[in-house]
Amino acid sequence: MEGTLNMIGMGLAGTGAAIGIGLIFAAYVNGVARQPEAQRVLQPIALLGFALAEAVFILAIVFAFVL
Amino acid sequence: MEGTLNMIGMGLAGTGAAIGIGLIFAAYVNGVARQPEAQRVLQPIALLGFALAEAVFILAIVFAFVL
Amino acid sequence: MEGTLNMIGMGLAGTGAAIGIGLIFAAYVNGVARQPEAQRVLQPIALLGFALAEAVFILAIVFAFVL
Amino acid sequence: MEGTLNMIGMGLAGTGAAIGIGLIFAAYVNGVARQPEAQRVLQPIALLGFALAEAVFILAIVFAFVL
Amino acid sequence: MEGTLNMIGMGLAGTGAAIGIGLIFAAYVNGVARQPEAQRVLQPIALLGFALAEAVFILAIVFAFVL
Repeated sequence: MEGTLNMIGMGLAGTGAAIGIGLIFAAYVNGVARQPEAQRVLQPIALLGFALAEAVFILAIVFAFVL
Repeated sequence: MEGTLNMIGMGLAGTGAAIGIGLIFAAYVNGVARQPEAQRVLQPIALLGFALAEAVFILAIVFAFVL
Repeated sequence: MEGTLNMIGMGLAGTGAAIGIGLIFAAYVNGVARQPEAQRVLQPIALLGFALAEAVFILAIVFAFVL
Repeated sequence: MEGTLNMIGMGLAGTGAAIGIGLIFAAYVNGVARQPEAQRVLQPIALLGFALAEAVFILAIVFAFVL
Repeated sequence: MEGTLNMIGMGLAGTGAAIGIGLIFAAYVNGVARQPEAQRVLQPIALLGFALAEAVFILAIVFAFVL
């Protein structure tokens, strides 16, 4: 059996990050659909949430090399 | 088979943290879409929730080295 | 193969704890977005729920060392 | 490979318990946000649900030592 | 590697049981929040649902010893 278990852990963190980003952008799309003029306010919030959820995945990538 | 099982555990905790962050920011986006003037009140709540969900991931990183 | 299976169990408990915290704070954000004056009543409820969900993770950390 | 498979089973039960607690408290927060005067009625229901969901985790801790 | 795979199976059944209990009590809390006078009717339904979801976990405990 080849490969490393670290890749499984990184993949699991990626699962959550992708679902979380999906939830945030789904809410962003819904919000703009309901109030198109709100896009200017919602965009930075959605991107902040994206960055914070993605950070979990970036940390997992880093620790996959460290551990 | 290389790698450490601890990375799998860290990845699993990351799954939950990222989904939790996604849920919180999705609610934040929805709340601001419905009431743009509520952003000032919602931001600290969303960031508190983010910090508490991220804390689970940070604790898992720490114990991945300890265990 | 390094690492301990206990870390996987701890990570699994962390998955649930972080998703649970996310659900509670998402509801908290939604509630305050709908009724900003309800924040005073909702905050202790959200923090009680956070503490009870986090307790599952804390117990799992403790038993990861005991088992 | 160190650790015990029992800890994985305990962690899996913890996943469900923590998500369940999150669902119950999210509903509790939403209910109080909609009707602040309902808190007196909803609190025992939320705590009963918490106790029954937590019981699954407690049973899993017990059987992690027995099995 | 210590422990028994049966405990993992029991934990998986516990995951589902606890999430199911959470869903039932979340709906119960929501129902009473909307119509406080419906509590008398909703309580036996919620407890029946709890018993049926918990039965899955109890059966899994029994078969963890039998198998």
